[in-house]
Amino acid sequence: MRSDNRKNNSVRHTKITRNYIKHAEGSVLIEVGDTKVICTASIEDKVPPFLKGTGEGWITAEYNMLPRSTATRKVRDIARLKQDGRTMEIQRLIGRALRSVVDLKALGEKTIWLDCDVIQADGGTRTTSITGAFVALVDAINKIHRHKPFKVYPIREFVCATSVGIVNGEKMIDLCYEEDSSAQVDMNIVGTGNGEFVEIQGTGEEAPFSRKDLNELLDLGERGIKQIIQIQKDILKMDALWIGTGESK
Amino acid sequence: MRSDNRKNNSVRHTKITRNYIKHAEGSVLIEVGDTKVICTASIEDKVPPFLKGTGEGWITAEYNMLPRSTATRKVRDIARLKQDGRTMEIQRLIGRALRSVVDLKALGEKTIWLDCDVIQADGGTRTTSITGAFVALVDAINKIHRHKPFKVYPIREFVCATSVGIVNGEKMIDLCYEEDSSAQVDMNIVGTGNGEFVEIQGTGEEAPFSRKDLNELLDLGERGIKQIIQIQKDILKMDALWIGTGESK
Amino acid sequence: MRSDNRKNNSVRHTKITRNYIKHAEGSVLIEVGDTKVICTASIEDKVPPFLKGTGEGWITAEYNMLPRSTATRKVRDIARLKQDGRTMEIQRLIGRALRSVVDLKALGEKTIWLDCDVIQADGGTRTTSITGAFVALVDAINKIHRHKPFKVYPIREFVCATSVGIVNGEKMIDLCYEEDSSAQVDMNIVGTGNGEFVEIQGTGEEAPFSRKDLNELLDLGERGIKQIIQIQKDILKMDALWIGTGESK
Amino acid sequence: MRSDNRKNNSVRHTKITRNYIKHAEGSVLIEVGDTKVICTASIEDKVPPFLKGTGEGWITAEYNMLPRSTATRKVRDIARLKQDGRTMEIQRLIGRALRSVVDLKALGEKTIWLDCDVIQADGGTRTTSITGAFVALVDAINKIHRHKPFKVYPIREFVCATSVGIVNGEKMIDLCYEEDSSAQVDMNIVGTGNGEFVEIQGTGEEAPFSRKDLNELLDLGERGIKQIIQIQKDILKMDALWIGTGESK
Amino acid sequence: MRSDNRKNNSVRHTKITRNYIKHAEGSVLIEVGDTKVICTASIEDKVPPFLKGTGEGWITAEYNMLPRSTATRKVRDIARLKQDGRTMEIQRLIGRALRSVVDLKALGEKTIWLDCDVIQADGGTRTTSITGAFVALVDAINKIHRHKPFKVYPIREFVCATSVGIVNGEKMIDLCYEEDSSAQVDMNIVGTGNGEFVEIQGTGEEAPFSRKDLNELLDLGERGIKQIIQIQKDILKMDALWIGTGESK
Amino acid sequence: MRSDNRKNNSVRHTKITRNYIKHAEGSVLIEVGDTKVICTASIEDKVPPFLKGTGEGWITAEYNMLPRSTATRKVRDIARLKQDGRTMEIQRLIGRALRSVVDLKALGEKTIWLDCDVIQADGGTRTTSITGAFVALVDAINKIHRHKPFKVYPIREFVCATSVGIVNGEKMIDLCYEEDSSAQVDMNIVGTGNGEFVEIQGTGEEAPFSRKDLNELLDLGERGIKQIIQIQKDILKMDALWIGTGESK
Repeated sequence: MRSDNRKNNSVRHTKITRNYIKHAEGSVLIEVGDTKVICTASIEDKVPPFLKGTGEGWITAEYNMLPRSTATRKVRDIARLKQDGRTMEIQRLIGRALRSVVDLKALGEKTIWLDCDVIQADGGTRTTSITGAFVALVDAINKIHRHKPFKVYPIREFVCATSVGIVNGEKMIDLCYEEDSSAQVDMNIVGTGNGEFVEIQGTGEEAPFSRKDLNELLDLGERGIKQIIQIQKDILKMDALWIGTGESK
Repeated sequence: MRSDNRKNNSVRHTKITRNYIKHAEGSVLIEVGDTKVICTASIEDKVPPFLKGTGEGWITAEYNMLPRSTATRKVRDIARLKQDGRTMEIQRLIGRALRSVVDLKALGEKTIWLDCDVIQADGGTRTTSITGAFVALVDAINKIHRHKPFKVYPIREFVCATSVGIVNGEKMIDLCYEEDSSAQVDMNIVGTGNGEFVEIQGTGEEAPFSRKDLNELLDLGERGIKQIIQIQKDILKMDALWIGTGESK
Repeated sequence: MRSDNRKNNSVRHTKITRNYIKHAEGSVLIEVGDTKVICTASIEDKVPPFLKGTGEGWITAEYNMLPRSTATRKVRDIARLKQDGRTMEIQRLIGRALRSVVDLKALGEKTIWLDCDVIQADGGTRTTSITGAFVALVDAINKIHRHKPFKVYPIREFVCATSVGIVNGEKMIDLCYEEDSSAQVDMNIVGTGNGEFVEIQGTGEEAPFSRKDLNELLDLGERGIKQIIQIQKDILKMDALWIGTGESK
Repeated sequence: MRSDNRKNNSVRHTKITRNYIKHAEGSVLIEVGDTKVICTASIEDKVPPFLKGTGEGWITAEYNMLPRSTATRKVRDIARLKQDGRTMEIQRLIGRALRSVVDLKALGEKTIWLDCDVIQADGGTRTTSITGAFVALVDAINKIHRHKPFKVYPIREFVCATSVGIVNGEKMIDLCYEEDSSAQVDMNIVGTGNGEFVEIQGTGEEAPFSRKDLNELLDLGERGIKQIIQIQKDILKMDALWIGTGESK
Repeated sequence: MRSDNRKNNSVRHTKITRNYIKHAEGSVLIEVGDTKVICTASIEDKVPPFLKGTGEGWITAEYNMLPRSTATRKVRDIARLKQDGRTMEIQRLIGRALRSVVDLKALGEKTIWLDCDVIQADGGTRTTSITGAFVALVDAINKIHRHKPFKVYPIREFVCATSVGIVNGEKMIDLCYEEDSSAQVDMNIVGTGNGEFVEIQGTGEEAPFSRKDLNELLDLGERGIKQIIQIQKDILKMDALWIGTGESK
Repeated sequence: MRSDNRKNNSVRHTKITRNYIKHAEGSVLIEVGDTKVICTASIEDKVPPFLKGTGEGWITAEYNMLPRSTATRKVRDIARLKQDGRTMEIQRLIGRALRSVVDLKALGEKTIWLDCDVIQADGGTRTTSITGAFVALVDAINKIHRHKPFKVYPIREFVCATSVGIVNGEKMIDLCYEEDSSAQVDMNIVGTGNGEFVEIQGTGEEAPFSRKDLNELLDLGERGIKQIIQIQKDILKMDALWIGTGESK
């Protein structure tokens, strides 16, 4: 039995509160077990220099943990004048994940900033951020779309993420902090609504893993991704994205 | 009439949720109107170099705004590699305010970190932070006190803060963002449970103010401080702090 | 008796040397007791981005202490790559104080940089900086005014600053370092030539203070501000600022 | 046909020059096609704070590109005062990869720094760095081992890395820059001498990928890893690592 | 006898490999004894702000040591967030040396970046960098010149550098690290093809030196400069630069 | 005739005010023409890590220009988060110059910080800093020596500095800013009381210079160094340093 009485193939209880911050174009509080992240989507009417004049938009993410989101207080980056390597790795991952399902040409010359601020951490903060940021992004896009519809609705697919891993020899999904910190193999999977992968990051720092292990972990992950996509659909009350272009106004 | 239908001498609706973050020794979500701040108190068993070996403790505060706590997205300090002057000014103020009611000798060689992270801003974030940080501090101190009572209970008084100002010629308390941004005079008041002041910061950048104006603003402020102290007492279910030493265990 | 034989209501001997640095549009060496600050005013023909095209000017201040202005050598900010919180607080205060008496529209799209570099510190460096920076500012403004008169003379009032505090239970004005470091209550007052306040910053970190204490400190401060304004008038040989527009050329 | 006339399943010509820098305990120049990286291994007789007194050692990596290793000159990190996110991601990957095959207890309280400086880049700099850093690491470990043998030889397995990807719909191995920059799917694989995986990082930012695609890419990658391990064995003239403990002196 | 059996007036064996990095407009690996530096020249079609619109070009240099170019590993600048004073001094020297022989008007509005990255250090890295950077610069200039000839060929003279010093009372040229670190007087000389000096930097930190010593060191240096210029001419297969304007196409 | 009516071989009027800053162990205001520098010497009872336990002391210098010491306001280093290359070069030079005449063993495990802050610049700030810092250093050393005499008086010689250069074809000494900015050749000379050189830094960025030019510049410089040493002796009322050990108490 797992520490929180889940089965190996069960994802944690996931709750998403939309419109959590009044100023943002899109914003959610996402809670996956005891992991809580505020995700906001902010729209800016300009793009980074490398896209100026191309007609394409950009999506970028920033990730941060509040100092006391963790068991022992984490020193703020600004106090050390350096951004944490782990933080940069995570925010690059979130950015890639979200860009993978957006048609940047259809978006036009806008930047969407996805800010994921972890207020309480209990494992899986990067995957929770991706799942939550997607919902905030849809809300921000729809806010524009309702006032001035895009010619082509810029979101092509649902996207979410979860983790799988091997803990004490057992393969399991959606690891909490206690499980994650004793995992031999740890893998983050970002998947889409039509069952494809956007990103697979598996690490066996403690112990290398075989092709067979990898396959079993992917089986677990694919199943979890489906469940989480359904949670996103329920909270957004949208069964499929492409309807958005036509009827969702 | 004020933008949110309050009277000039009414403070905004104030809600404090205790034990908001599971890892912290003390933590609250404080909401004053639409201003929302997460305040955590973290205890560390060491002190800064200048206090080593003195037997005295220290209390320090850090303040930060989430990027989208504001109407337009605020760039993170780490992206500019510089801490904002306003941020530093505010966190120094919070630290002084809280230290003013704590007996650092009675605390012993411990540091208490008060982290105030604004998740939604609508004016008064610094005064809200002080009011909320005090409740988080009491919870953290009591957590120690219940397990291993202090010889002298280290908190001497309640402390809270609010703002007063002159907006369109009217004197009013607890300014929201809209009022604050058009104020001719703006004053932050930090006061204690026994009716004294810890800090007065009044600025008439837009228009200097007279001694008479100052007196009327202080009258308004003193009344508000009393109301807010009562809110703290209610949420803490502690009528007076000194009882803490004896019966609060 | 005070350490330097002053009475509680006497400000220190104040000496202002104009045109101290040959390159600057305005510059003074101001000596208040043993506190010595070089204040320069530099005019730049552009404004920060938020004012571009508005026709308004800007006034900003920078404050710094030379490493050996203090009893023990102070490490330079650049060696730590961080600006000191106290420094930022002070330079923001100086900027607000000076802007409060300048008509930024009348100034036009110019920035005036006020650099206050403390060469010897003995308490009251921030108030000394404000008093000196005002004289440097007037000289810089008049330099322009003599060659190409402003339609409306942009300085509206004299402004200066001093400190008051409670030391060993005694209320006194213009604290030297020894007094300041043992003060229970410390207050900085920025006041104008017509007897109004621009800024009041009172702190009772060591001991909260009552409304009565506050009133007595303000009485002391108001008296000192008048004396210091007179010193500014004498050194500038200008009895009132508005005459400037007409006869001071 | 590929740009350099290779078959889809051929890795590039790989040349490793040992003892390339005279000061380092281990050092190689590794050339994979036109990608050239200097990898050095430096031994330091202390460990980071979190390992002090545990008897365990540490392995950490730093990665950097010379400004003109790339087609257009890359500004140095120090000129921007920020470390590039991509750089941090890569050096964290190199560190994990190398630690995965080292018995840190057997190493004892030493830190081994692996510096990978890219002098010419043509795709695959991170995988080339891992492959080269392993050879430098073995040389550094053996230098110690020859003088004062470890009780347990600390390297458990060979480790190397390569990339696979989908370019214009074709699956291929060891992408050069031209291929990499137009890849729809890009995957880095770190594998060991006994056929297991240490790290799998696959990204379909341009186009999500199916489970079937993933399987075919892994087939390609496994084959390449075997070839590269053989190149390492040849240059090190060591057929298997465990012999090291006994006879390699 | 010197540590490497050279005579006091012999420069070390010098080897220059041209076109060492494929991406750069000019690039060499220069080896002077065991000191090895990669020098690249990169052409950018813009100039720093102070030259915009003047029609003049600019030449600037950056110098860096790889962490393990030295006997003990040198921490990277970015890890300390500060550029080393010695590094800045050296790169300013390289920039001045190269600019001294280039006609910046003839160059036109271009910037040439000279990057000197030391991969192995054994004394004389700054002088080696100057000597090598000149060859890379000529190659970069000639690359332009071949395609679109300059009206006036912008390089006026050869330039190179070497060191002289007093070690154990003996005057000698081109000090290796061992000699340099025990030198009483150390002088770097930058000289041109027509026998003039561009820069003389002599330091007697350990022991002041007389006018006579200075003269003897300069005699030694002048002789060495001539030898090194000949090495540059041989590797460039150019006997004199001014021919460049006419026939070198 | 030179801009200030001096002859080519005349140094500028030099005035040194001792005990200028009350807190410092040694301090001067040095004025050389219109160049004005505050030099302080601060004694600290510890040494940098590389000297701990060796019994030797250290001397280090920091140099800075006040923002308005120059004709156009210079942005503070801290505002750019980077120390200027020129600044670092100068402070390294000042440190070497002063260390060259001090017996660091005789000094014992102390660090002397020499802070040179330029309040008004008109050419020659680095040489003025060296000349002034020496006087501050003697005062600081003598302050110790009077209370607790050194066994061996740690200052071995007087040291000062001046510049020479070629301006419009004329060789001249002690260049003011106007001359310096149009000089073809510029040389800084640091010399001792017994006629030796500590440092020679000559640059012909605008135009290389011949051995003959160098000799004539050195002749000019040697003469100036003698004059400046005499000025130091007069202000210190010490004819020779070695008397210090015996009688100067």
